[in-house]
Amino acid sequence: MEKEFIEQVSIDCVIFGYRERKLYVLVLTLKNANNLRVLPSGYVGQEEDIDFVTQRVLETRIGLTDAYVEQFYTFGKAGRSTKEEMESLDIQGQIYSSAKLQDFKQWATRRFISVGYYALVDMEKASPQVSGIDESCEWLEVDDLPKLAFDHNEMVMKAFETLQVMLDPKRLAFKLLPETFTMKDMQDVYETVLKEPFRRNNFQKKMLDFNILERLEKKFTGTANKPPYLYRVLPKEV
Amino acid sequence: MEKEFIEQVSIDCVIFGYRERKLYVLVLTLKNANNLRVLPSGYVGQEEDIDFVTQRVLETRIGLTDAYVEQFYTFGKAGRSTKEEMESLDIQGQIYSSAKLQDFKQWATRRFISVGYYALVDMEKASPQVSGIDESCEWLEVDDLPKLAFDHNEMVMKAFETLQVMLDPKRLAFKLLPETFTMKDMQDVYETVLKEPFRRNNFQKKMLDFNILERLEKKFTGTANKPPYLYRVLPKEV
Repeated sequence: MEKEFIEQVSIDCVIFGYRERKLYVLVLTLKNANNLRVLPSGYVGQEEDIDFVTQRVLETRIGLTDAYVEQFYTFGKAGRSTKEEMESLDIQGQIYSSAKLQDFKQWATRRFISVGYYALVDMEKASPQVSGIDESCEWLEVDDLPKLAFDHNEMVMKAFETLQVMLDPKRLAFKLLPETFTMKDMQDVYETVLKEPFRRNNFQKKMLDFNILERLEKKFTGTANKPPYLYRVLPKEV
Repeated sequence: MEKEFIEQVSIDCVIFGYRERKLYVLVLTLKNANNLRVLPSGYVGQEEDIDFVTQRVLETRIGLTDAYVEQFYTFGKAGRSTKEEMESLDIQGQIYSSAKLQDFKQWATRRFISVGYYALVDMEKASPQVSGIDESCEWLEVDDLPKLAFDHNEMVMKAFETLQVMLDPKRLAFKLLPETFTMKDMQDVYETVLKEPFRRNNFQKKMLDFNILERLEKKFTGTANKPPYLYRVLPKEV
């Protein structure tokens, strides 16, 4: 009989958020599984496009339906999980296995091929949510990640490298910012992701040359002597 | 009981070859399957890295063990195969199903998630080979492809776009050439892949600036007035 989900395949999501010159990634700690830390992931329903799984994971995990999402790499080494990690998952499976996944052990403790997607979200709009089988669901700093289970550290690194390479060609920095932002906010994102300083004038010229920004009113904060302009991405370019 | 191969996953290979200003891709025509034309592909053994499947396919199909190979995208829409394509595969399965894949119908006519790899090979060294279930295994021009089964035309296009984007940063042009080549050979590959002309002097400077080429003896053909130099990629850069 055909299983409801495709076996031995998962969609793993590297969800990036940005705040105050730091880049974060969403990480779950599994309950009763020796504190295994993992990236959010989902199985692929038999009738489900793999792109859609990512959207489902994002909606479930951070309540967003319109985040920017991109596939970046598929991880398929035979030895991606250690014996200890398998056993931890097995313990959890024995406690929490649902009716749908009665054969949880057979299901989740086998080898997986994982299609990696990264997502860029506005952290202010995202609200991380624990599910029944997580201890926690939280933003951790990309530069200061603890050991994650399986090859998930490698996954984050590969997604981060893709983000660096694609930041300019795909105008990705704006996906990490709220709807309106100052030139300095943009420069902060660039410097955080690319890990290099930019000169203010050059940077401003580069951004304006993209021809996708609209200048709005000044941002009055009550403290700045020279309030900076706010910008947003032109609606047709979003 | 665990299957020998991972179900519903395949590795599909876009094998590019180059000759005389034309780019080719290796295409199979399946026997007794209404002439379905497909890219070479392989299943993933339970203990097999997905990268290795690609090497196995290349060795089986063109007898090469050292081709340049790169994963580029995973295709996982739910409706990748039409009903007619499924039925054609089913007919073939009934005729050719082996002992290993007795449940061929259940196996090959279900939905597949396909990890796409592209390979760049020296066409002179590659010898396409039919297997028991192919009518033919041949090089077809990328610019003049017939309708392939499933989403395989889209796969070739996506692989080709990746090749265009990565041609420079990953120095891919040399992977399509024999061990030694002239500056004109290189320019021909560039112009064929990028579909734009280069100026000879600029092109030569760009190639030499890569700092990965070694100039060898002149290529005497007996006819040229000014025989061109031969080059090869420095061994440490191969």
